[in-house]
Amino acid sequence: MRLIVQKYGGTSVGTPERILSVARRLIQTQGEGSQVVAVISAMAGATDNLLKLAHQISPHPTQRELDILLSTGEHAATALTAMAVNALGGLAISLTGAQAGILTDRNHTKAHIANISPKQIHELLSDDYIVIVAGFQGQTPEGETTTLGRGGSDLTAIALAGALNADACQIFTDVDGVFTCDPRIVLDAKKLKEISYDELLEMAGGGAKVMQSRAVEFAKKFGVEFEVRSSFKKRSGTTTREEAPSMEDVVVRGISLDRRQAKLSIAGVRDEPGIAGRIFSNIAAAHIIVDMIVQNASIAGTTDISFTIHEDELENARKILMPVVGELGGHRLNTTSGVAKLSVVGIGMRSHSGVAARMFECLGQNSINIQLVSTSEIKIAVIVDEKDAERAAQLIHAEFGLGRLLPAASATQPLA
Amino acid sequence: MRLIVQKYGGTSVGTPERILSVARRLIQTQGEGSQVVAVISAMAGATDNLLKLAHQISPHPTQRELDILLSTGEHAATALTAMAVNALGGLAISLTGAQAGILTDRNHTKAHIANISPKQIHELLSDDYIVIVAGFQGQTPEGETTTLGRGGSDLTAIALAGALNADACQIFTDVDGVFTCDPRIVLDAKKLKEISYDELLEMAGGGAKVMQSRAVEFAKKFGVEFEVRSSFKKRSGTTTREEAPSMEDVVVRGISLDRRQAKLSIAGVRDEPGIAGRIFSNIAAAHIIVDMIVQNASIAGTTDISFTIHEDELENARKILMPVVGELGGHRLNTTSGVAKLSVVGIGMRSHSGVAARMFECLGQNSINIQLVSTSEIKIAVIVDEKDAERAAQLIHAEFGLGRLLPAASATQPLA
Repeated sequence: MRLIVQKYGGTSVGTPERILSVARRLIQTQGEGSQVVAVISAMAGATDNLLKLAHQISPHPTQRELDILLSTGEHAATALTAMAVNALGGLAISLTGAQAGILTDRNHTKAHIANISPKQIHELLSDDYIVIVAGFQGQTPEGETTTLGRGGSDLTAIALAGALNADACQIFTDVDGVFTCDPRIVLDAKKLKEISYDELLEMAGGGAKVMQSRAVEFAKKFGVEFEVRSSFKKRSGTTTREEAPSMEDVVVRGISLDRRQAKLSIAGVRDEPGIAGRIFSNIAAAHIIVDMIVQNASIAGTTDISFTIHEDELENARKILMPVVGELGGHRLNTTSGVAKLSVVGIGMRSHSGVAARMFECLGQNSINIQLVSTSEIKIAVIVDEKDAERAAQLIHAEFGLGRLLPAASATQPLA
Repeated sequence: MRLIVQKYGGTSVGTPERILSVARRLIQTQGEGSQVVAVISAMAGATDNLLKLAHQISPHPTQRELDILLSTGEHAATALTAMAVNALGGLAISLTGAQAGILTDRNHTKAHIANISPKQIHELLSDDYIVIVAGFQGQTPEGETTTLGRGGSDLTAIALAGALNADACQIFTDVDGVFTCDPRIVLDAKKLKEISYDELLEMAGGGAKVMQSRAVEFAKKFGVEFEVRSSFKKRSGTTTREEAPSMEDVVVRGISLDRRQAKLSIAGVRDEPGIAGRIFSNIAAAHIIVDMIVQNASIAGTTDISFTIHEDELENARKILMPVVGELGGHRLNTTSGVAKLSVVGIGMRSHSGVAARMFECLGQNSINIQLVSTSEIKIAVIVDEKDAERAAQLIHAEFGLGRLLPAASATQPLA
């Protein structure tokens, strides 16, 4: 018999009506001849409300207690979902992360899954139960409740699918799947049928937040295939899986856009070991996340180092770096806010050359200036002015023929 | 070292500010040289919100799932209280009912406590923790979460105080203690220093709902002394304990009033075995709670049976009984709504005679008609017209000299 793991996010179970609609889908899936495990998030807004309460009590809530507090959101949602299945004539039972056998380390509020013992789930499935598991949580070897950090329910679903050796893992969410580009930016963006783990990771790093990177990395590590699809529609979504040779035929899988970035450049620093470490350890100590880092070739013993961060962190970063620049021998610190990162992703790039050239030429012909470039094996990312960002995405999308409507040839005109 | 169990109800932890104020009291109590266990209810309104959600999903929610859902209210409140203690510089840890060692039967939503193994609590107390226990819940031998029914947090506190052999058990609530009568009715009602279990039970049965009867019965069975007191004031409250000889000196401990009652009388039913059973099994099947039952002496082989129920159930009860009356040989069914029950309670009644006579005379002199009488060893209850009820309570309160201000002599004038 097929075994399917389905994950429903907070908006999918945000109201009693939506919980009943999830229950209907679970019963239908079981009726089509599958064993069904559902991983459920807290009802939309519940986690934020609990966090707000905690912060009204204390600016630094005890981590152990925070985990107990937050886990109640998923407990409530799973109990309600099980009730809904039973009310509609199905047979369901809810399990906490602990009861589902999810063992974690002792790292409260951002625990890692150490092991899964899904014995009880298997038994309940054999007894024809639809098993409803609380996402985002587990327990330590001592029986303490832990949570897995933001987006942890995706991780629960993928880890359970792996441990149960499920035939399918479906992530139900409020989008239809993964698109060639954000459909709000590129009107004819196309839903992808499939994507590789690495491509999805690069897309997510580029602002297309369908799933948290940790869950995708976990899926890649254990080879768990999963489908991202809409909980409000019947249509199939996007399947993420190991790359197959056929996948390389597509050179560019998709484009993603990260807005509200800022660029910092330190000109003329000494080209010596330890200089970059000095810069970035200061930034890291302030919990500022650095995205692209570019260092140019050394000229006359000095070099320029540029990097990008979120716009909101710019003031903070500037304060930290000002006193350091001189010590490093740098001439000055240049900062620019109001820029965006445009990433072009595709595993086909490994075997196809000329993608960067084609991308740069397209942008150049349309007078869009490239401020920074950074590449990985399957990605080319450029920093452009925020005001050019949407037009750049539309141009590149058309250039590589990713749209549903337009042939690649007519691609140098903006679409919106 | 002294060990104190304190219980805080939903209104006491109804807001972040109040939770912080409970935390302050816990730290203070520990600072005065006691080990402290706190039993916490869900934040005011939380349980009702969860119940509402459940009933939006299903008219008859799965009992097992309902227990998981409802228990989240106490989990959240205990975690927040522990955070608050820690935020104020104390050391606290929260425990679920299961972690506190509270084992129950499998009777979901109204489980009975089977056993308590407070090993973990003792260990944590030795490590100087203030231990915050989720009220109202336990677990079955199979590890399933159960709840103890409405008012179950009182029961948790009393059972834990018993199992821990605590030196004191304090029930913090939104009233100052148990009064000789409801102070809203009798202005000079006096807070009682002490009361026996049986008196409190009879007062509670008479509408003075300070604590649920189950918790009081449990306390009586295991001889657990407890004090009911205000969570918003420093003053001591009312201690409930085994009756002592000195307690019998007070003939009447208090008066309670149950409003919105209805009286039903069936006249001339055959005085045969099984007749009362026929009447009340029909009523019980409709889940109508019957309070007083009075049957008069048989005259010529027939008798009259009267009983009282809540006013809201009158129509329902009438519909059930109309077809039955004839079968039982009854002449007719008389019903009266708009009546109230006035109960006079005191263990001193056992050794003092004349209480009933004095009560009836007082009411008669003031032209208040008595419609039904029922007595127990330590209680006399009468049914009077609702419009006379408050005046009757005031008169009797004064007659037996229960007030703070007035001597018994001046007692035949209403106080308000």
